[in-house]
Amino acid sequence: MTHLYGAFEPRGSDGGSRVGVRYGDRVLDLAAALDPELAAQVAGPNLDHLLAGGPAVWQQVFDAVGVLEPADEHLHDLADVRLLMPFTVADYVDFYSSEHHARNLGRILRPGQPELPPNWRHLPVGYHGRAGTVVVSGTDVVRPSGQRRTAESEVVFGPTTRLDIEAEVGYVVGVPSRLGSPVPLGAFADHVFGVCLVNDWSARDIQGWEYQPLGPFLGKSFATSVAAWVTPLAALDAAWVAPPPRDPQPLPYLDDAGTAPAGLDLRLEVRLNDNLVSVPPFAQMYWTGAQQLAHMTVNGASLRTGDLFASGTVSGPEPGERGSFIELSWNGAEPVELADGQERTFLEDGDEVVITATAPTADGGTIELGEVRGRVVAGRD
Amino acid sequence: MTHLYGAFEPRGSDGGSRVGVRYGDRVLDLAAALDPELAAQVAGPNLDHLLAGGPAVWQQVFDAVGVLEPADEHLHDLADVRLLMPFTVADYVDFYSSEHHARNLGRILRPGQPELPPNWRHLPVGYHGRAGTVVVSGTDVVRPSGQRRTAESEVVFGPTTRLDIEAEVGYVVGVPSRLGSPVPLGAFADHVFGVCLVNDWSARDIQGWEYQPLGPFLGKSFATSVAAWVTPLAALDAAWVAPPPRDPQPLPYLDDAGTAPAGLDLRLEVRLNDNLVSVPPFAQMYWTGAQQLAHMTVNGASLRTGDLFASGTVSGPEPGERGSFIELSWNGAEPVELADGQERTFLEDGDEVVITATAPTADGGTIELGEVRGRVVAGRD
Repeated sequence: MTHLYGAFEPRGSDGGSRVGVRYGDRVLDLAAALDPELAAQVAGPNLDHLLAGGPAVWQQVFDAVGVLEPADEHLHDLADVRLLMPFTVADYVDFYSSEHHARNLGRILRPGQPELPPNWRHLPVGYHGRAGTVVVSGTDVVRPSGQRRTAESEVVFGPTTRLDIEAEVGYVVGVPSRLGSPVPLGAFADHVFGVCLVNDWSARDIQGWEYQPLGPFLGKSFATSVAAWVTPLAALDAAWVAPPPRDPQPLPYLDDAGTAPAGLDLRLEVRLNDNLVSVPPFAQMYWTGAQQLAHMTVNGASLRTGDLFASGTVSGPEPGERGSFIELSWNGAEPVELADGQERTFLEDGDEVVITATAPTADGGTIELGEVRGRVVAGRD
Repeated sequence: MTHLYGAFEPRGSDGGSRVGVRYGDRVLDLAAALDPELAAQVAGPNLDHLLAGGPAVWQQVFDAVGVLEPADEHLHDLADVRLLMPFTVADYVDFYSSEHHARNLGRILRPGQPELPPNWRHLPVGYHGRAGTVVVSGTDVVRPSGQRRTAESEVVFGPTTRLDIEAEVGYVVGVPSRLGSPVPLGAFADHVFGVCLVNDWSARDIQGWEYQPLGPFLGKSFATSVAAWVTPLAALDAAWVAPPPRDPQPLPYLDDAGTAPAGLDLRLEVRLNDNLVSVPPFAQMYWTGAQQLAHMTVNGASLRTGDLFASGTVSGPEPGERGSFIELSWNGAEPVELADGQERTFLEDGDEVVITATAPTADGGTIELGEVRGRVVAGRD
């Protein structure tokens, strides 16, 4: 399980934060375990320094970790450490790249109109989120308050009544790019270090009232949870799959027909209070991470180390493959039944959501990505 | 002119970047000029450390600067220094708080529909922009390429044909807030250090095609210019004015009826190639900075040192008070005439835009804010 990189701090220690790699139920102090030259590449309180190192360094570290026989003194029980944000988020971008999700939202929110916006099949629709409220897995999520419009068209203020999740996969950028210079499809692996699971919490009532004409803002900005562990691309060699066919053919800067398969066969699982409620298939995403990156930079926008861009809600074609409760409950009309007889449309205080995922390996097995976990708590007022 | 704080680096020196204060055509090395205790508050390559210091420190520094009699050895000619980003941008949020601008855009872009979106008078509409592409005044702006839809509904790719500006005022956050804890109207000055002019460059054709349903993305993210100089709120004591009347009465968390006047009487000037093309009045903004801050955090979103939130395009009721070319040229129908006989609808390569502003002082005079300047250059392809 040496494909999970994060940041940790031994509890009760004043040694501070450092880079760790998961070994089962333990975490390896990577800088302590590597030889000094490589250790310098993972220096610092989190992955920031390694991210900036670039592909050759990433591969060196990955190869070295794969053959390490760590001494017990460098291993800490997970129960004895605090997991921290694995990297410093520079800009956070969220896409909307599952066709099934976009169609479901269109049917629910804009009935009578075309399911997909006219631009959807021409470009990966996306927007900037709030980097400062990206939190690490395990952080409680305070139910946000805000304005919403009632069914009677009254504008009221209060805690959201439609708190939702979005099960997503995030890409973590390591190597910056220059302002004014697009990053083409083929340069994806020169810039992207790895992936992590993301839960882009959403207050659907706040979002529904605010989002015209400039997009989601407070309906999203209260919290976005990321896994404590980032999986380097090097661990996903066997997970690449062909994305779904595209129609129309994308413009040249987005056309991946001649490239190696750029979809990722990650299989997500969403659990609410230990009930498996969905199994979203990431391989079904219409737009790939490489296309998202090419689009995001085609206007010359530069990348920084720590940029995080997420896929958008991962939903498959089947009802049990939907990555949000607005879809799973069909906007509240079809409550999700839990094993104890309870039902859920949207989230209640005390609910805990855990998103996990597996990726195939070359030997026919799977590896697990780091989970993203969060519990809803009532607002302080 | 000691109300302009920035960051500079003497040319040809390897001494690195430090905090500077403008003295006419010279810049004072502030840490070198202050006594050691206060100098420690402005340590570092830019304003980040001072921003985090908080209101008491800001006032101490402001008072000390006001009575300084700087030695020549601490003053550098502006011509001999390079001005740098005055602070590290954490999150960048852009609002849309001029009613005149919002109505103009509604009339231009959504004819036949209500000029204002239904939410506009209930909340300050805003969205997150790209912090990583905020650049300091003087940085060339590379004309972005992207997708647009032609009048014949064809989707094409190429350099934007509708490059525009947005003349705005930005607020610079110094003191962070805690996740889950809103910042009320009255706490504005506890968190906000000062203001700077902003030019939020916009590619209208790219934006028009991409922005439904998640808002502006590549139409904005290629560059946002900020002045090299931040003006602390302490220098704007005489500039506070009552904002326009609101209808309907804002919800309690946005209702500033009982507070001190929270509008700012800044008078902007927009010049294109040395032609004065607009004089946008900031006092006319419908939503104030305090309301924007209260709204942005009412869902519990936290603030970080270096957060920048901008007002949105400043436009007044008169044609000569519009803060963007899409308004000034009425979407291209009424070209702006320049002194040399040229006309402009949108910006051409080589065009230079300079935005300046003045604020009133207690003695009936004015002070100048730091200009924001940018020149359009062709893309590299």
